[in-house]
Amino acid sequence: MSTLPKQFLLGRPLRSSQMGETLLPKRLALPVFCSDPLSSVAYATEEILLILALGGTALFHLAWYVGVAIIVLLVVVIASYRQTCYAYPNGGGAYVVSAENLGRNPALTAASALLVDYVLTVAVSVVAGVAAITSAAPSLSKHAVALSVGFTVLLAVMNLRGVKESGRIFAIPTYGFVIGIYAMFAFAAVRMALGHTIRAESAILPVHSAGTYTGLALVLLGMRAFASGCTALTGVEAISNGIPAFLKPKSKNAAMTLTIMGIMSITMFAGITVLALVYKVHVASDPTELGLPAGADMPTALAQIARASFGDWTFLFYYVQAVTAGILILAANTAFNGFPPLTSILAQDRYLPRQLHNRGDRLVFSNGIILLALAAIGLVIAFKADLSSIIQLYIIGVFISFTLSQGGMVRHWKRELAGTTDPAARRHMRRSQAINASGAVVTGIVLVIVLVTKFTHGAWIVTIAMPVLFLLMKAIRRHYDSVAEELRVDAGARPEPPSGNHAVVLVSRMHAPTLRAVGYAQSIHPSSIEALTVGVDDSETEALRREWELHGLEVPLVVLDSPYREITRPVLDYVRRKHHESPRDVVTVFIPEYVLGHWWEGIMHNQSALRLKARLLFTPGVMVTSVPYVLSSGKKYKYKERGVKASSK
Amino acid sequence: MSTLPKQFLLGRPLRSSQMGETLLPKRLALPVFCSDPLSSVAYATEEILLILALGGTALFHLAWYVGVAIIVLLVVVIASYRQTCYAYPNGGGAYVVSAENLGRNPALTAASALLVDYVLTVAVSVVAGVAAITSAAPSLSKHAVALSVGFTVLLAVMNLRGVKESGRIFAIPTYGFVIGIYAMFAFAAVRMALGHTIRAESAILPVHSAGTYTGLALVLLGMRAFASGCTALTGVEAISNGIPAFLKPKSKNAAMTLTIMGIMSITMFAGITVLALVYKVHVASDPTELGLPAGADMPTALAQIARASFGDWTFLFYYVQAVTAGILILAANTAFNGFPPLTSILAQDRYLPRQLHNRGDRLVFSNGIILLALAAIGLVIAFKADLSSIIQLYIIGVFISFTLSQGGMVRHWKRELAGTTDPAARRHMRRSQAINASGAVVTGIVLVIVLVTKFTHGAWIVTIAMPVLFLLMKAIRRHYDSVAEELRVDAGARPEPPSGNHAVVLVSRMHAPTLRAVGYAQSIHPSSIEALTVGVDDSETEALRREWELHGLEVPLVVLDSPYREITRPVLDYVRRKHHESPRDVVTVFIPEYVLGHWWEGIMHNQSALRLKARLLFTPGVMVTSVPYVLSSGKKYKYKERGVKASSK
Repeated sequence: MSTLPKQFLLGRPLRSSQMGETLLPKRLALPVFCSDPLSSVAYATEEILLILALGGTALFHLAWYVGVAIIVLLVVVIASYRQTCYAYPNGGGAYVVSAENLGRNPALTAASALLVDYVLTVAVSVVAGVAAITSAAPSLSKHAVALSVGFTVLLAVMNLRGVKESGRIFAIPTYGFVIGIYAMFAFAAVRMALGHTIRAESAILPVHSAGTYTGLALVLLGMRAFASGCTALTGVEAISNGIPAFLKPKSKNAAMTLTIMGIMSITMFAGITVLALVYKVHVASDPTELGLPAGADMPTALAQIARASFGDWTFLFYYVQAVTAGILILAANTAFNGFPPLTSILAQDRYLPRQLHNRGDRLVFSNGIILLALAAIGLVIAFKADLSSIIQLYIIGVFISFTLSQGGMVRHWKRELAGTTDPAARRHMRRSQAINASGAVVTGIVLVIVLVTKFTHGAWIVTIAMPVLFLLMKAIRRHYDSVAEELRVDAGARPEPPSGNHAVVLVSRMHAPTLRAVGYAQSIHPSSIEALTVGVDDSETEALRREWELHGLEVPLVVLDSPYREITRPVLDYVRRKHHESPRDVVTVFIPEYVLGHWWEGIMHNQSALRLKARLLFTPGVMVTSVPYVLSSGKKYKYKERGVKASSK
Repeated sequence: MSTLPKQFLLGRPLRSSQMGETLLPKRLALPVFCSDPLSSVAYATEEILLILALGGTALFHLAWYVGVAIIVLLVVVIASYRQTCYAYPNGGGAYVVSAENLGRNPALTAASALLVDYVLTVAVSVVAGVAAITSAAPSLSKHAVALSVGFTVLLAVMNLRGVKESGRIFAIPTYGFVIGIYAMFAFAAVRMALGHTIRAESAILPVHSAGTYTGLALVLLGMRAFASGCTALTGVEAISNGIPAFLKPKSKNAAMTLTIMGIMSITMFAGITVLALVYKVHVASDPTELGLPAGADMPTALAQIARASFGDWTFLFYYVQAVTAGILILAANTAFNGFPPLTSILAQDRYLPRQLHNRGDRLVFSNGIILLALAAIGLVIAFKADLSSIIQLYIIGVFISFTLSQGGMVRHWKRELAGTTDPAARRHMRRSQAINASGAVVTGIVLVIVLVTKFTHGAWIVTIAMPVLFLLMKAIRRHYDSVAEELRVDAGARPEPPSGNHAVVLVSRMHAPTLRAVGYAQSIHPSSIEALTVGVDDSETEALRREWELHGLEVPLVVLDSPYREITRPVLDYVRRKHHESPRDVVTVFIPEYVLGHWWEGIMHNQSALRLKARLLFTPGVMVTSVPYVLSSGKKYKYKERGVKASSK
C-alpha cells in the first residue's frame, strides 16, 4: 500500500517508544476483552432451546437443569482463570501456561485449539450480530454474507489502528448491551408484578418434534443442549491472555475485571433463560417445524423476549437489537485482541512465519490481524453466514485449551509448593491448586461431552483442522531449526576472503551503463575479467563485436551462441563452468542496469536481467553485482526523508 | 509457464537455424493468407441486404448495382496489390510501403489502421463463424460468447505452434468451403435448368421497411449498403505482407496466389448474391421486422441459400455450414499471420515495446499473437458476440491502409521511373503506376463513403482508437529515443573507474552469510568498509553488537535507530548521505542473502532484502552486490543443461 491511503485508513505511524500509551484502564479493558463472553448470552439460550425443541416443547423444562449446569461451569472456569491472572502477570494464555508446565506438544495442541477457535469466534460473533440486525430489519436477510464480510473488514481496520482507540469505540455497545438487558429484566419484572401475563410472539406456534426421546436418547439430547449452551463460556480466557495490556497493578485489575464480567454474564444468561421459558419462546432450526412457510423470517429468541418484555415501547426493542448487534460484532474483537499476540508469540518461538512477530506502523501485530480476518471471511463465505452450521465447529477448541490451561496450572502450583515453606503462602497455593484442579476436571468432562454430541454435526472438521495446524507448526519449527543450524557460526569465526575473484560483465549493447560496469569491475581488481554476451541475432552480435573493438577495451568479449534464443540458460551454464574450473574462487557477475522512473517504462524494456539475477542467486560461488545507471526519469523518483539518526559505536 | 506443459501445448522449441523450414508452397499459402477474403463472401451479401431491407424488398434490386460495384473494386484492388508483390519482395505491407514512400506519419497512420483492423478481423470472423454454427444448431445460440472466446484461444495456441503446421490444418476448411460453394452453385444451376423454382425459407416473410427512401436518402442508403458489402475486401493485403513466407520465386508465387484468390472471391460473391436475389432471401437485423417473434432464431442468408439449393440433400447443407464455420474461424488466422510480424517491425522501429520484436520457442512472434488474441477476446465480450454491432467498426482501417499503400506505390514508381531509362521497363512501370493510381483513387473514395455512412453506427469508436494508437506509438518512440540518447557513448569512450569505493555490508544477525559477505567485501579492497544494521528491537541489537565484538572483526558496526520499525528508509538515507559526502566515489552495498530452494520457504523469511535492493537501484552512485549463501534446500534446485557453446573471439 502506498503511504497516503494507508495513513488515512490506519492513522499515522507510531514510534516504538509510544508503546506505553496503549495500556488500558479497567473500564476500557472490559469492553475490549469481554465482549465475547458477555455477548454470547445473546444466543446461548436459543442454542439450548433449539436442541431441546427436537423433542418438542415437553422437553423445554430441561432448560432449567441445563441453565444451572452452565452457570456452575461459568463459576468454576472464572474462579480458575482468576488464579492464572495472579500466577502469570505477563499474560497467561493457554499456550504459555501449557508450554511452561506441560511441555512442547501440549502447548502446541493448545495453540492450534486457540487459533482455530479465534477464527470461529470472529465468524460466529459477526454472523450472530448480523442475525440480530436481520431480526429487526428482515429485508436485509439476503445480504447476510456481504454484511458479515463487511463487518469483519471493518473490525480488522479498527484493530490495525491500535488497541486504545478500539477500546473507546467498543465501550459504547458493550455497556449499552448490558444496560439494555438489565432494563429489559426490570421492565419484565415490573409488568409481571403488575399482573400482566407476557407471552412471546412464537408461543402460539406448534413445535413439531423430530422424535420421542426417552432413556439414553433423552440424556444425550440433554447433553447436546448443554454442549450448545457452553458457547456462553467462550472468550473467558481472553483476559488472562491480555494482562500486559492492563494498567498497573495488572494482575489485580485483570482478576477484578474477570469477576465483574462473570457476574454480568451469569445474571444476564440466567435472566434471559428464565424469561424465554416464562414467555414460552418456541424456536426451531427450520421454519416449517413451527408450521411456518419455508424461508419465513424467524426472529432470534432474544429478539422475541425483548419485543415481548417492552410491549408497546418498541423503540426499546430496537435499541436492544442495535446494541446486541453491536456487541456481537465487537465480540469478534476479543479474537482480534487474542489472535495476533498469540501468533506473535508462536512466531517468536519459530512455530509460525516470522512476519507474524513484527509490530506494524501502529504498534499492533498487523499481519496477525490480517490473517485472522481472511480466515474468518473464508469461513463465513463457506458456510453462507449460517449461524447454526458454524456454531457446531465452535467450543471444542475452547474446552481443549481450558483443560490444558487448568491442567498446566495444577502443575504450576505443584512446582511453586515445592519451593515454598511459608505455611500461609502454602495454604493459599493449595487453595489455588484445588480450584484449578476442579477447573481442569470439569472442563475436561465438558470437552468429552461436546466432542461426543457435536462430532457428527460438523465438529469433525475441527478435529481435522487442529492436527493439521499442529503438524504445520511443527514443520515450520523444523525448517527454522535446520536453517539456523546451517547459518550458525562458531564463536570467534573469522571472515574468509575468497582466494580468487573472476569478474564477468554481462553486455547486451555498447552503451553508457556497459562502460560504467566495465570500469567498476576493473576497479575491484579481480583476478580475471571478461565481458559476456549472448548471441541471439547474428547481425546485432557482429555490430556489438565491432563496437567493442572500436572502443579498444582491454577486456575480452566472450560471445555465447544461443540457438534457442534464450538468455538466462547460456549465462548460467557459462558461469557454472567457470566456477567448477576453480571451485575455491568466486565468480562475480556484473549486471549493467538502467533504471527507469515509472513502472510502465519497465514494460518497454526487457526484464531478462531480473530473471537472470534470481537464477544466479541459486548458483553456488557466484556473487551478483547490479551496476545501476539511473536515467533522468529515474532521478525524478521522489521519496520523503523521515528523521533518522545514525549512531556509530 | 513451466517447461513441460508449455512444450505439450506448443511443441518442442525450434533452433534459430530451423527458420527456413517454415516457408510455404502456394497451395498452403492460399489457405493461410486468403481465408479472410475468401470467407467474407459468407456474410458480405447478407450485410448488403440487411441495409437495403431498411427500405423494404422494393430496394433489393439495388443489390445488383452494389454487387457489381464491389466486384469492380475487388478487381482494382487486387490488380494494385499484384504490383506491390513485385515491388516489395521482402514484404510490402501498408506500413512498409508508406514508410518508404510517404514518410513517418502516414506510415504510423497505416500501422494504427492495420493494428485496429487485425483485431477486428479476428473478432468479426470468429463471431461470424459461430453464427454459421448456431444457424445449423440453434440450441448453441446462448453460448455464442463462450464459443467465440474458445475459438480465439484455440487459434492463438495453433499460431504459437508455428506457421507451417497451421497451413496444413487450415487447408481443409478453406478448400472445403470453396468446393462447397461451387457445388452449391452447380446444384442450383442443374435444378433450375430442370425447371424447379427455388425459394428461400424466408421468401414468404414480409419485410417491414423502416421508412421510405427517395432522392438523396436513397443514394445514401445505397452507399451504406455498398460500404457494408466492402467487407468482402478485407484481408486482400495479407499476401503482400506475407511474401517472405512464400517459396521462391517469392514475388511471382505471391502474385499468382493473389490472382487465384481474386477469381475465387469474385465468382463466389457474385454467385451468392445472384442466388440470394433469385431465391428472394429476406433478412432483417431484428426478427420482429420479418413478422417473427422477438428473439426468434434467424439463419444467415448463406444458410438459407444452401438449404434451398440442396433441397432434400440436407447433409450437403450441413457440410456447407460446417466448412463455412471452419473457414470463418480460420479467417481470423489471417490476422494472426499479419499482426505479429507487423508489431515486430514496429517494435524494431521502436514504436512498440521491444518484447514484440522477439521470436518465441517456435520461431513465431509469440507476444504479438497473445496480444492480438487478448484484444479480440476483449472486443467479443464487450460486444456480446453480436456480429452486426462489431462489423460497424470494421473496414475503415482496411481502406485507410489500402489508400495509403496504393498512394505510396504511386510515389514508388515515380522514383523508380526517375532512375530508369530503358523504354520497355519504363512502359512497364508507367502501367504499374497507373494501376496503383487508380487503386489509390478508388479506395480513397470508398474510404470516404464508409466513413460517412458508418460513422454514427459505431465507426466513431475506431476514429478514436486509431489516433490514440498513433499517439501512443509516437510516445513510445520518443521514450526509446530519449533513453538511447542518454545511454549513447562516443566512439572510443573509455570506462572510468570510480575514484573511491565505500563498502557497506548490511547485517541483520551474526551468521554464516554475514561473515561471507564481510570476507568478500574485504577482498575487493574498498577505500573504506563498515557493517550496517538497523535497530528495531533493542535487545536484539545489543546481542548483535556483543557477538560482533566477540568475533573481533576489524569492520566497525554502525547501528541505525529506526523508531518506526522500518528497514528500507534508514538504510537508504544513510547510503545517500554517504554518497553526498564524496560524490565522485561510489558506495557498494553488500547484501548477504541466504537462498532457499522452494518458493514457500520464502514466505517464512522476511523479504525486506528484495524491497531494499529495488529501492537502492534508484539511488545514484550506489552499486548493489548480492552475496548469496545457498542452503542445502537451495542446492537441490535442479535445472537441465541444454547444449550451449561458448566462443571467445
